[in-house]
Amino acid sequence: MLSNKLLTKIHSQIPLTKHMKIDIIKYTKTQLFSTAPLDININDKGTAFAGSLSTLTTISSWGVCWLLMQELGFENTAIVILKNETVFLKPVTKDINCVTQVPSKEEILKLKEKLLFKKSGSITIKSHIIEDAQECVSFEGIYVIKII
Amino acid sequence: MLSNKLLTKIHSQIPLTKHMKIDIIKYTKTQLFSTAPLDININDKGTAFAGSLSTLTTISSWGVCWLLMQELGFENTAIVILKNETVFLKPVTKDINCVTQVPSKEEILKLKEKLLFKKSGSITIKSHIIEDAQECVSFEGIYVIKII
Repeated sequence: MLSNKLLTKIHSQIPLTKHMKIDIIKYTKTQLFSTAPLDININDKGTAFAGSLSTLTTISSWGVCWLLMQELGFENTAIVILKNETVFLKPVTKDINCVTQVPSKEEILKLKEKLLFKKSGSITIKSHIIEDAQECVSFEGIYVIKII
Repeated sequence: MLSNKLLTKIHSQIPLTKHMKIDIIKYTKTQLFSTAPLDININDKGTAFAGSLSTLTTISSWGVCWLLMQELGFENTAIVILKNETVFLKPVTKDINCVTQVPSKEEILKLKEKLLFKKSGSITIKSHIIEDAQECVSFEGIYVIKII
């Protein structure tokens, strides 16, 4: 399964994701579900550390880009974040649950065309940290993808 | 020294900062200098992981808020990040160096008055990751401080 490959890749190549015990739960073609336990990612207030929340959203959105590239048949790519905006709405008091949206078919098609004709393109990805059906963190990142 | 207290606090209360080997180098009253080694914070491209860069800037800016609170005599506070914007300008290829700006005297005075009269206030803090005199990451965060 592609989501297992993603987890193996990040754990082996980005050691901090393994230490944080980031896990990929499910990839449904419209959403990627990822998690990290509270204990190792705790802060001075006993809630989830903002750095861990940023890291989980950043790598989950990156992960959606990587999954899309595999599905589109672009296996050798460099995917880098260009910028992000993160809003911290509520403290996270339990294990951290992240939901990342897969972009629309139109956005993916537009990216595919750029990659085919220009060898590079960018896409916006949104991740949210959810607890008890409430949004705790809202992340929006722009990722640049280059064919290598 | 106050910067040593800050390091002891984050390493003891936010375990991820200790694992990342975040260090506080110097606090000059206008800037806070912090670092993290590349090896433990590396990504799939052999450069610094965006999650680590976000974490170092986030905690360094938080640290400046905490240092300001100690200097102003507000010892019991809750300092939380409200939102941030981060721009990744260049990849970081060596150990990570972060420079965080202490806000102006006017901004600090405005915050102090809010804390005295309303028991809470917010302030914007800027951190930059610098390599070979070039800016690699630009972070701007808004922090909310409450007297508890």
